Amino acid sequence: MARERAVVLASGGMDSCVTIAIARQTHDISLLHLDYGQRTESRERRAFSDIADHYRVEHRLVISMEHLAKIGGSSLTDPSIPVSGADLDGKGIPTSYVPFRNANMLAVAVSWGEVIGAGAIFIGAVEEDSSGYPDCRREFYDAFEGAVRAGTKPGTHIRLITPVIRMTKREIVLTAAALGAPLDLTWSCYAREDVACGLCDSCALRLRGFRRAGLEDPIPYAARPDYP
Amino acid sequence: MARERAVVLASGGMDSCVTIAIARQTHDISLLHLDYGQRTESRERRAFSDIADHYRVEHRLVISMEHLAKIGGSSLTDPSIPVSGADLDGKGIPTSYVPFRNANMLAVAVSWGEVIGAGAIFIGAVEEDSSGYPDCRREFYDAFEGAVRAGTKPGTHIRLITPVIRMTKREIVLTAAALGAPLDLTWSCYAREDVACGLCDSCALRLRGFRRAGLEDPIPYAARPDYP
Repeated sequence: MARERAVVLASGGMDSCVTIAIARQTHDISLLHLDYGQRTESRERRAFSDIADHYRVEHRLVISMEHLAKIGGSSLTDPSIPVSGADLDGKGIPTSYVPFRNANMLAVAVSWGEVIGAGAIFIGAVEEDSSGYPDCRREFYDAFEGAVRAGTKPGTHIRLITPVIRMTKREIVLTAAALGAPLDLTWSCYAREDVACGLCDSCALRLRGFRRAGLEDPIPYAARPDYP
Repeated sequence: MARERAVVLASGGMDSCVTIAIARQTHDISLLHLDYGQRTESRERRAFSDIADHYRVEHRLVISMEHLAKIGGSSLTDPSIPVSGADLDGKGIPTSYVPFRNANMLAVAVSWGEVIGAGAIFIGAVEEDSSGYPDCRREFYDAFEGAVRAGTKPGTHIRLITPVIRMTKREIVLTAAALGAPLDLTWSCYAREDVACGLCDSCALRLRGFRRAGLEDPIPYAARPDYP
């Protein structure tokens, strides 16, 4: 019997790489990469391609959403706003927040999913580790799933699956190891494209996750501070 | 006291023109026009500018979402799918349906709205006349509003206001007349950019609305069939 088709949102980062590894166990996957004008997009896109090649997924779509950069309001897209240093225990919304970014991404994924007959969208959102982005919480996905139900054709039934949302970065690293996900191909740094900076929020969360998992991060860093 | 700011989604068509006329009575409005790769975009964008000029709204943003064309699946964006003839009583989903289009538009509007501190998004969706698009029903906006609540910053409170959603095209024409909205500047045709074709779904609904309102449509048509 043919497996259900699913769209997996894949940034090229660690969380979406593990999400792909999980999704492909049950679904026939199509990979969607969204360029929203972030500083490190070309490196992230290379990571996306490398991961898609690794898993031999032919069905992929790269979409430019640079309008999110035009809207601005975020350090990831607006060069006049500096990238915050790591603040792993902070409760505030970091400057790297792109307003309502994941809703924009999900809307594209659902549009594509409806065209190709997908029954699910997988997204590697992580609630606990994600620096307080409001659209990384399961509550948001439940609400958005209601909008998908109400706003698509009667024959379309698309679930939003967030397999890593309750995981810590440590658990993501361990899951990747268990599933053989190629974390060496992923890219997480918000600041650099040659080697990871080791200093931005995203690097700090990643390095701490590896440390807590007792594993070595295989990618090169400019600096590797100890994040306890 | 300063009035609440609102983003109004403005296509250049009749429904959004009336929506602007309604929104400006209570809100300080910012206009958002989205280009999603539709055939008649350049004519629609001119209509958008003309309407914004008419109301002297300086704060406007035009965003390209041509990725919706890349996703395809609709006659509005895919040249290989013909535009359907008028089928005013049909219950099916027309070929001009762009999957989950309004969700993509709302997501952009909410992102911009969050950046500029808006308390509301106005959208001129019309349930009854809108040829069965599933994302034109109030039920969809209620669901999406829940996703906005869950997915934006704690200090952000954005309502989705659909002031014409229960109106017929006749009532929209009458409301436009009552508010002095410049329907002569609007563009509705899906097929042509020089003069309206008079034959596509959108022209047929518009012409029927004027006829039922007992008013003359001020824009030029290639053909003006009688739609009873």
